[in-house]
Amino acid sequence: MSYENVPVIRRATVTPILIADPPLLNVQGVHQPYTPRTIVEIETSDGATGVGETYGDPAFLNLAREFASDVVGQPLTAANVVRWHNVVPGTSEKVRASVASAFEVACLDALGKHVGLPVHALLGGKVRDTVEYSAYLFYKWESHPSADAPADDWGAALDPDGIVKQARRFTDLYGFSSYKLKGGVFPPEEEIAAIRALAAAFPDRPLRLDPNGGWSVETSVRVAESLSGVLEYLEDPTLGVAGMSEVHRRTGVILATNMCVTAFSEIPSAFAASAVQVVLSDHHYWGGLLATRDLAAVCRTYGVGLSMHSNTHLGISLAAMTHVASTVPELLYACDTHRPWQTDDIITTPHTFVDGCLAVSDAPGLGIELDRSQLALLHDRWLHHEPMRSRDDAAAMRLADPSWQSPSLPRW
Amino acid sequence: MSYENVPVIRRATVTPILIADPPLLNVQGVHQPYTPRTIVEIETSDGATGVGETYGDPAFLNLAREFASDVVGQPLTAANVVRWHNVVPGTSEKVRASVASAFEVACLDALGKHVGLPVHALLGGKVRDTVEYSAYLFYKWESHPSADAPADDWGAALDPDGIVKQARRFTDLYGFSSYKLKGGVFPPEEEIAAIRALAAAFPDRPLRLDPNGGWSVETSVRVAESLSGVLEYLEDPTLGVAGMSEVHRRTGVILATNMCVTAFSEIPSAFAASAVQVVLSDHHYWGGLLATRDLAAVCRTYGVGLSMHSNTHLGISLAAMTHVASTVPELLYACDTHRPWQTDDIITTPHTFVDGCLAVSDAPGLGIELDRSQLALLHDRWLHHEPMRSRDDAAAMRLADPSWQSPSLPRW
Repeated sequence: MSYENVPVIRRATVTPILIADPPLLNVQGVHQPYTPRTIVEIETSDGATGVGETYGDPAFLNLAREFASDVVGQPLTAANVVRWHNVVPGTSEKVRASVASAFEVACLDALGKHVGLPVHALLGGKVRDTVEYSAYLFYKWESHPSADAPADDWGAALDPDGIVKQARRFTDLYGFSSYKLKGGVFPPEEEIAAIRALAAAFPDRPLRLDPNGGWSVETSVRVAESLSGVLEYLEDPTLGVAGMSEVHRRTGVILATNMCVTAFSEIPSAFAASAVQVVLSDHHYWGGLLATRDLAAVCRTYGVGLSMHSNTHLGISLAAMTHVASTVPELLYACDTHRPWQTDDIITTPHTFVDGCLAVSDAPGLGIELDRSQLALLHDRWLHHEPMRSRDDAAAMRLADPSWQSPSLPRW
Repeated sequence: MSYENVPVIRRATVTPILIADPPLLNVQGVHQPYTPRTIVEIETSDGATGVGETYGDPAFLNLAREFASDVVGQPLTAANVVRWHNVVPGTSEKVRASVASAFEVACLDALGKHVGLPVHALLGGKVRDTVEYSAYLFYKWESHPSADAPADDWGAALDPDGIVKQARRFTDLYGFSSYKLKGGVFPPEEEIAAIRALAAAFPDRPLRLDPNGGWSVETSVRVAESLSGVLEYLEDPTLGVAGMSEVHRRTGVILATNMCVTAFSEIPSAFAASAVQVVLSDHHYWGGLLATRDLAAVCRTYGVGLSMHSNTHLGISLAAMTHVASTVPELLYACDTHRPWQTDDIITTPHTFVDGCLAVSDAPGLGIELDRSQLALLHDRWLHHEPMRSRDDAAAMRLADPSWQSPSLPRW
């Protein structure tokens, strides 16, 4: 294809890294001391650079390396081309989309810097100056069970008091006024008690509970009825369209998901069954920032809400999330982010939450700068911690409980 | 909202014009000798300019004038803001969207010129270098019945031979190899005969027939069965979701529409009923180029095809159509355009069809330049032909047939 007026990608670099992660608990186990991410850098023929970030497990990393050689020589604007790139047969849709997203974000960053426009302006323009995020509360241990793991000063949170204390610290430090608890860790009654404690401590603040599909339909219905009027939404209480649909039908609770609907192909049947009322977008596995706008269009058309999912990530992805969220008028829920839990970052000026919000950058591109010394440090960590290169929450749990296996769901 | 790095709109101008139109027949009557359009120009604080074009009837023109004062002071990138602008209560969704689209296109044109990028690059990047258009065949009279009307040299086309002759000229002049006949003018048997004549003259070329909802369900079924295997698709044979759905269910014919589904709010029920298999996008009344991408996303997700509708238009809109079409991977049908029928244009270098296609411009913005002398001429025409300021195909028909009334549909 011909492209005048647009720089060509001259170089693409993929760097695997490990970032430190606290011992955060979920239905599968516990976060490992380090979690892998893939950092993508591109450079154009006229010297503009752009960065992107995605999952770091081997399937993602290997495909990213293939992409890196494929995109050389392509025009910078070809977000569409990257997105629809006909890549390695056999890789899953989620892996392809997640890898493409890192290159798309890097292209948009570089294009924005090349022309002097913020990324949001390349997505149609922001409709708000700040994007609100929610506090992502986790049951957690005080420390990882391995001696050489990174430490944190958040302390343990294993009961309602611990969760309220954690929420208070999130609010004191960052001003969050919306709270999501990662559930599926303890029997549902304990998690109901934690939500009730949050509701008492933070009256009228939006509250969410996400057991990652850990409950049966009956348990989900029981929790939904017990917390009727207390939750802003219940996230993935149970797995699958049929179960989610039944929970909604029987209780009327608003159900959000990043498990029941994770790709465009899953939308029609789930929407038809009223299985989800809020889709949690994630620009990584939905395929990029343009794809996130596409998802928003589908949700808007079908009267389904939109919020934003987060996995463990760094400041590059947080910048990308903030840009795209700023352009979607109906994204009115506070977005999820794990960001405060990770003290590592690879941008020179990490984001600062004020009143639970991030300011939308008007600087060219994503408005961030890669911190090369940090990148080198975290890559070196990747080189020297081979067992951490695949995320495995069950393996991490076995350090504390040798008999632990990923539970078959529903667990309760 | 704060906007650094982005120029602000300093001036917005709205100019009503009349463009000459041949006596093209449809189910409502005949095109008037002149048809109204609204031309939008914006200028930014740093002198970048952009143009857009939309419908010209008074409701559109008046709202465009309100928009023109509202957008002054807004940042150039605020395509979203323009699109979602909370405008004059009481105006219809279609009018609001159509007016917003002209401003959105003008903003994208100016932004592209400001930063040196083609509009398609502001929409995610083109995925093809050319966009194919189809020949838009019309039954037509040799001339308008009024003496002072503009003349054309296409001659009459009132039977199968005339339509084939017209199609041949389209192909000879522009290389079109896909043909759409505007039907609903003569009894269905005559139009079936015209399609059969086209199929004989142009074997294996895609053919379409569009009676604008002029037929009953029974007539539609009869035509669909009669032309089984001959048509690429049948466009709006009958009005409404129920009727379209029944025609598709009984015949299996692929149904396209620009009447049954014309706004996002109409999509869910129509898709659920399998009433349409191809949506004809129109960036004017769908609300702009970003909205067209949104429509494409919804269609892709639901497995519904996408093609492109045209109303009488000039080169500004043709440029906008070509840019957005170039960015949508699944827009694989030849797009409709009335363009060859209008000899007027208001761009300095009118588009040239080669092999039925237009090259996608890589020049900054839309890649066109407003011809100010032509704009002045066509505006002067608007000033001096007050009766033509509203499009009224039935009124035009009454000049030849004083008893003519817009038929109540279905006509057959």
